[in-house]
This record gives sequence, structure tokens and C-alpha cells, in this order.
Amino acid sequence: METNIPNFLKQRAFLTPNRNALVYENKAWSFIELFEEAKIYAQKISSLGIKEEDTVALLVKNRPQTVFIIHALQQLRVKTVFLNHRLTPSELIFQLKDSQAKLLVSDDDFINIQNDIHLLYDSLQLTTIQELKHLPKKEMEVVNEYILSDICSVMYTSGTTGNPKGVLQTFGNHWWSAIGSALNLGIKEDDAWLCTVPIFHISGLSILMRSVIYGIPVYLMEQFDEVRVNRLLQTGNITIMSVVGTMLQRMVTSLNGQGYHEKFRCMLLGGGPAPRPLLEACAEKGIPVFQSYGMTETSSQIVTLAPEDSIRKLGSAGKPLFPAQLKIISEGKGNIPNEPGEIFVKGPNVTIGYLNRPEANQNSFEDGWLKTGDIGYVDEEGYLFVMDRRSDLIISGGENIYPAEIEEVLLAHPNVREAGVTGIADEIWGQVPIGFVVLNHPVSEDELLSFCNQKLAKYKIPKKIFKAEALPRNASNKLLRRKLKEILPKDMEK
Amino acid sequence: METNIPNFLKQRAFLTPNRNALVYENKAWSFIELFEEAKIYAQKISSLGIKEEDTVALLVKNRPQTVFIIHALQQLRVKTVFLNHRLTPSELIFQLKDSQAKLLVSDDDFINIQNDIHLLYDSLQLTTIQELKHLPKKEMEVVNEYILSDICSVMYTSGTTGNPKGVLQTFGNHWWSAIGSALNLGIKEDDAWLCTVPIFHISGLSILMRSVIYGIPVYLMEQFDEVRVNRLLQTGNITIMSVVGTMLQRMVTSLNGQGYHEKFRCMLLGGGPAPRPLLEACAEKGIPVFQSYGMTETSSQIVTLAPEDSIRKLGSAGKPLFPAQLKIISEGKGNIPNEPGEIFVKGPNVTIGYLNRPEANQNSFEDGWLKTGDIGYVDEEGYLFVMDRRSDLIISGGENIYPAEIEEVLLAHPNVREAGVTGIADEIWGQVPIGFVVLNHPVSEDELLSFCNQKLAKYKIPKKIFKAEALPRNASNKLLRRKLKEILPKDMEK
Repeated sequence: METNIPNFLKQRAFLTPNRNALVYENKAWSFIELFEEAKIYAQKISSLGIKEEDTVALLVKNRPQTVFIIHALQQLRVKTVFLNHRLTPSELIFQLKDSQAKLLVSDDDFINIQNDIHLLYDSLQLTTIQELKHLPKKEMEVVNEYILSDICSVMYTSGTTGNPKGVLQTFGNHWWSAIGSALNLGIKEDDAWLCTVPIFHISGLSILMRSVIYGIPVYLMEQFDEVRVNRLLQTGNITIMSVVGTMLQRMVTSLNGQGYHEKFRCMLLGGGPAPRPLLEACAEKGIPVFQSYGMTETSSQIVTLAPEDSIRKLGSAGKPLFPAQLKIISEGKGNIPNEPGEIFVKGPNVTIGYLNRPEANQNSFEDGWLKTGDIGYVDEEGYLFVMDRRSDLIISGGENIYPAEIEEVLLAHPNVREAGVTGIADEIWGQVPIGFVVLNHPVSEDELLSFCNQKLAKYKIPKKIFKAEALPRNASNKLLRRKLKEILPKDMEK
Repeated sequence: METNIPNFLKQRAFLTPNRNALVYENKAWSFIELFEEAKIYAQKISSLGIKEEDTVALLVKNRPQTVFIIHALQQLRVKTVFLNHRLTPSELIFQLKDSQAKLLVSDDDFINIQNDIHLLYDSLQLTTIQELKHLPKKEMEVVNEYILSDICSVMYTSGTTGNPKGVLQTFGNHWWSAIGSALNLGIKEDDAWLCTVPIFHISGLSILMRSVIYGIPVYLMEQFDEVRVNRLLQTGNITIMSVVGTMLQRMVTSLNGQGYHEKFRCMLLGGGPAPRPLLEACAEKGIPVFQSYGMTETSSQIVTLAPEDSIRKLGSAGKPLFPAQLKIISEGKGNIPNEPGEIFVKGPNVTIGYLNRPEANQNSFEDGWLKTGDIGYVDEEGYLFVMDRRSDLIISGGENIYPAEIEEVLLAHPNVREAGVTGIADEIWGQVPIGFVVLNHPVSEDELLSFCNQKLAKYKIPKKIFKAEALPRNASNKLLRRKLKEILPKDMEK
């Protein structure tokens, strides 16, 4: 049976019109004001011929206008593709074409990227936020209800092989994610969630969704700045913040003797396992860290450490949110305590699948469970410990990097015969990628790096590329990425 | 798409095993203990041949064993019929037969009622809680997931005409009701909900469901006692309590100078409109009253006054819960501010319909909206003011009384030609029913009352029966119950 819920923003604006919805620098918008802004942008976007069930892509920053436009698209029942502005034009164009976006809306700061896209993909309709503002309004009706099975957003992730895949996030996925989080963290009247993570990632978008569902404000920052954030967390205005390890590390390092305000009750830590010393430093400083595990496919956290366990189970990602389940499959058997295996997850917050990828959908799901590819174990009490993100995944400053994508670029160079990429620990970013190549013909590291530079977002470019005689492979000639570190020069060994 | 959620109790016992689930007198059960008790009762009930999709009826008191058995039935995926123990054997048998219950489980205190039922319906399988305890355990598997569209519970309500109807409440109805309430009231780690309302009513059952979904304890009392309750609310152990007007009136009357503990944050008031002087007395004493509107068909409250409006909109039932909607239909038009009309409601907490009543289902629903039959209006800001429960409904101490049911009994007496029943105000109960009869042959009031006594629950027996020459009717000869008060003797006029 199809479940509909009243249009989240419209309902929130009706129920609690005057509560704060959004705070940015020195300006605040109430829910009724946010709804009005969303309607204005919806009318302007309508004037470009965009209508129900179309797809619109956003290349945006963490700014109020972005929030208005995201809600505007939801008012129109339009699917939104969230682009990572750190990607190269050709990476972006792949996603724009794959999602069949009818329109790209860019932040004014990204006009150069937009121009580059236009050069290569001139049939795509483009606009900037500034241009949008000057468009005429076209009468439109905001939807009364959100259909939980409708696609709300699409976010691309790369897999272990092949092209990036668009993760479909329904309104229901976002709803259940927000509800699952609420049943774990609670909802208090004075809650306020700080968003310094990118809105184009699920960590950021999910904060916007929760704000409207819970009726609490988002404090939005364009960029993470540990000094400003530390100051803000001392005011008592913020009760919850989402971070990745790199951010938290910087915050802790720059935090002076004074801790955070007692109203600050949750530092929600995602984006890969956190180093134990960092967690211990937080415990010492009284920072209430909630480690969590999640991914684009689970519409943010799906496993979170409950308040009462935060100290006792330091280092664990916790237990599933109430509506969700997890199991560990190791050699076909499930949930043997302390036995590592692949993490499977299930729940109404889990994506219904990847856009245009029947094969990936077939391979990634089993009896309604998503096979994450990540490795972990559960202890006797059922607490999850994540050991490795998808055997190959590199997480660098909260961004996911897939070795296969970089290897493909290296292999495209005529002088490269074989390529392998893996991650090594990095003090600032957690991890960074490094590459290994077997050559046909001589070529310098610099040339390879500049070749990568043309095709890959900056954060994906290997920090170093090593030349090797051969790469470690198994019997069936499959690259063993984990063994790449064994052929590192002695002085770089980890 | 079917949505499944992990078995609520099993998941809660897994996620937060050691939190308090149930407190009764001086004893407490954690969620893991509650789950263990539920499994034991499920094994015992299984030994009686009860299995998935069967229906079991409960005739029970507000006691811990009742809670265990309710959860036991859910573990087995068995539908539960909640019987009101104030009904007569013939009223109970109607519900037992209509619901095709395979088993009746009675509290030991109700052995006499059970014997009476047995005399009239000897093919029904019966057991008491005491007997259940001594049964052998049969191996069974608790369900892993609740299917939200599965029927969880059935509660009978009477309509304006004909026999009582079994309201079907799905797991989803209970889930969404709990979530809607949480999004309005918030969820705090130290929440505890006091249940002194009957578990066989939705007001009580919904507290048990919320407890498991939120992970908070229910403080259960067998009977409402204003002195004990007032004392408990001063300890800080309770944060939320559900009441009807009569209970609140008794609490306020017996409350001495000292108010409640500051942790007590919500007096959730349902069961019909509350008199203004009572609400004002509460405001004066600092009692945080949340007026609400709901019914068996909406799985408890569907409209509740948000914290920030409790004073400004005194007397209003508030706005819909987040997942729900309401509209007022007056002469075919909707939602004209301040214009009274019929209250329509919609939402995933609203019943999917009545058991075995295709006609009632057809009449009660329109485009997915439930026509409540209640009269009210919304003001300019959309706040609901309930004026009258279903034109004819009498609410007496929180119990719903339908005039048609009493009239039918009166008309069954050979000397009665016409009968009409209406409610009059009563200081203790809010309202009580009174009857009017036109006779064929003389009969005393006492004889009529004792005739009613055999067929009706005590609270339904008219406080007074008046003889009349004729009853007020409209042109098509339909009884005008509202005009009955006009033929009251002068000294009883209201």
C-alpha cells in the first residue's frame, strides 16, 4: 500500500510556521519564510519548462539559496541530482547524461565549471542562481503530499568497477532515515543541527530533511572552519553536529581548555572509522561523540552508537537504527560474534537501487538486503565494528575515492600497461590514494599526474605514483589491491 | 511497496535491553525482560493451537501480565481483540463472534464473566492468565519483522446505527501514530509515560506501543486514583500522562498547593472536548495540558495542540500530527475558517476500515479521508475546535456511548413503541445518557432500567428514563436526538 505524507515543508510551515528553519551568518528564516522562498524558486524554475517527474541537477554551495532551491524542486515533484563541485567537467557530464537531467542549476561561483560543461555538452539547459532570480514566475501548484516511493534525490557513488552509479533516494528513504535517527537521538524542542558538511553529500542533505521533519533549525556554514565551529558550539545555540574524522580532528586540535556548551549533545561522526586516539581525546574533553556507519545508499547513518554505550563501546559504530537491520556474512554464514565478514544492511532508509544499472542492482541486493561490500564484525552484544570500507574504498577527508576509477584513468595513458591504486594513512585527510604502474614505454610521474589532473577531481589524484615490475595478482589474475602496499619502497611502508 | 520494520519488541530488546520498559507498583521490567516474558507467554499460547493470523480476544485489566500477553500475541503474528470488561456477556459475545476469535484470555478476576460467556457460547476456547501460566511451552519462532499492513489489534466502537464495528488497527497505524506523536511532543531520554487509562482502549494500548518504539518505560496503574497519581507526578519519575477530562478534573480538585515536578512535561488530554474552566484551572496551576482529538479509528490522537500554542489557543485541539491531515466539510465546501462542518481526517495512522462491514467502510471513507461524523471548525490559522462528537455521541468518563445502541435495547421491551436517548452534562462524568420512551402499555421506569441492566454495560444505562407522548422527529420521521432535551421536565433543563 502506497504511503503518502503531507508535503514535508508545506506541513511544517503550517504546523509551526514561526520556528526557525535556517540560520546562515547573521540571517534567519522561519519555516513559513522558507516555504515562501521555496515557492518563489519553484515558480521561477517552472518558467524554464521544468515539470513533475523531470530531473534537475544542482552544482551548488552550502548557501541559503541552495536550501530554497532544493525545497523548490521538491515542491514541484522534480528529482534532484546532487553534483560534487570538486569533480572535473567530464565527470560531471557523465552524471548529467546518465541521469538525463533537463536542467543544471549552478551557484554563481561555479560559472567557469558551467562554461566548461557547456563546451562539451551544449544541448544541456543551464542556469545560475543569479539568473534564476531574474526569471519571471510561472504559476504552479505545490504538491500536497509526498509519495514515499517517489525519487527525491540522486547522488553518484563509484563502485569497485566501472562508471559511477546514481543512488536513488526516495522521499521514504529520507523520511525513515530521519525517523530512525530521531528514535535513537531523541528530539528536543531546542534542538539545532549544524551543517558544515556539503549539502551535495547525503550527510548534508539529510540535515535539511531532518530539519523540516523535526521542525528544528539548520545552522548552515558555507565551509567548515574549526575555529568558527568551536566558537559556535560554545554558545549553546547548537545541540547536534555532523562531522567526519578529519573535521573532528581539526576541531579537537584547535579547542582550547574550555569545552562545548552543555546543550551541545551530539557530535555525529560518520565517513569511515575514526582513529581510537581521536575518540579518546574526545572522551577526555567531554565531547559527546556518536560514532556511526552509513553511506549514500542508506540515506545517511544506518548504524549509530546509542548514548548509553558511547564510552563502553568506544570504537564501535553501534547498533542499527530502530527501523533497520544489519548482518555480517562470512563464508555464507551469518552473525558469528567477532568473525569478520561482509556487512549487509536492510531497512526502509536503504536505497531502492541504482539508476540505469540493472546489473549492479542484481549484484548489490539479496533478499531485500544491501550488500555493502564493507568489512566488519559484530561482538557478542551485536555491536558493529567496521574494519574496512568496501575492501578497496579510500576515504579522504570524508570523500569516497574508488581505486578502480583512478586505475581506469591511468590505464588510459598509452604508456601504462597495468595500474593499481590503494590508500595510505595521512595525518590530515585520514587517507590519500597512491598509484602503482607497470609501463609499456617510459613516462615520468609528473606526466602521469598531469594526465590524471585532466580527468579526475583533485582529491582523487594519487599523492604519489610508483613504477613497478609487476603488480600483485591472485591466481585468476585479479589485482590484489591490499597487497600493493607490500611493494612500496621501504621508507614509505605503513 | 510493503514496508516491514523489525519486530518492535525484539528490536527494542536488542537495541536497549537494559532500559526500563514497564513499572508496576514496586516492580520493574527492562526491555529484555519484557521480551523474555512475552516469549514465554507466546510459547504457552502456542500450546493451545493458536498460530499466525489467528485472532485472540483479551478480557483484561491494567496489569503486567496483560502487557506480556499483548506482546506475546504480536510475537506470534496473531490479531488481538480488545474487549471492554464493562460490557455485558451478550455484548462481549457479539464481538467474539464477529471477530471470529479462536480463544478468549481473561484476567483471573473476570472468571465470572468468562463463565457467563461460556454458558451462551460454549464452543469458544477459554483460558485465564492463571491457567496460561501452568500450560506447557510449545516451541515457536517469534516473527523477525512486523509487516506494517498486518492487522495488530481490533477494538469495537458503536456507530450511530446498528451493531458495534470492529476497528482494524494495523502495525503501521500504531507505528505512525507513535511517530506522529513523537514529532509533536519530542522524545527525551528520560521520558516515562503514565498509563492509568484502560489498555483495552486505544488510549492505553497506544502507550504500550510507544514505549517499545521510543524505548521509554510505561508506568502502569491498575486503576486511576487521583491521590496516587498526583503523588507520582510530583516525584519526577513521570514526564507524560494520558488523561480524559473526568480524570483531570479529579486530579486538579485533589491537588494541593504544590504543583507537579518540573520534569512532568505533558498532560495529554483526550476523550472529548474539555470544559474551559478546567483548562483555565490547569493553566493557573502550571499543568502543561495538551488538548488533543482522536478516536479508535485514528489509533489515538491525530490532532494535538503544540507546546507553543497551549495558552494562546486554549480550548483548541490543535493541528494535525505531522503525518496526518484534517479538513472540515460544510455543505460540500472545505476549510472555510470558523465555519462548522464535519471533521474529515487522513493519515497513515487512520484505520484501514471496519471488520466485516463493507457498507460502513463505503460510507465512512471518501478519497482516502475518514469521515468522523464529528462537528468542528478550524480558525484562520488552521487550529481545530471540536464542537460536538458525532452528532449523537455521548462521552461519559472517557467511554463512548452511542444512543442508537441503548434505543435498540429499549425498543426490544414489548411495552415500548418509540425510544430516544441523548446525553446531559454531569459534574463527575462529563456526560451521562438519559432516555425517552413512548409506550404501548404501561411499564415502570424501574422495570425498564432493570431490562437495560441485563443487556447493557453499566455506564450505558440511562440515568433517567422519561415517558413522553411523542418524540421530536423531522419530516422524514427521523428521530431528532438533539431536540430530546426540549421535552425534558422543566427542573432538569440544561
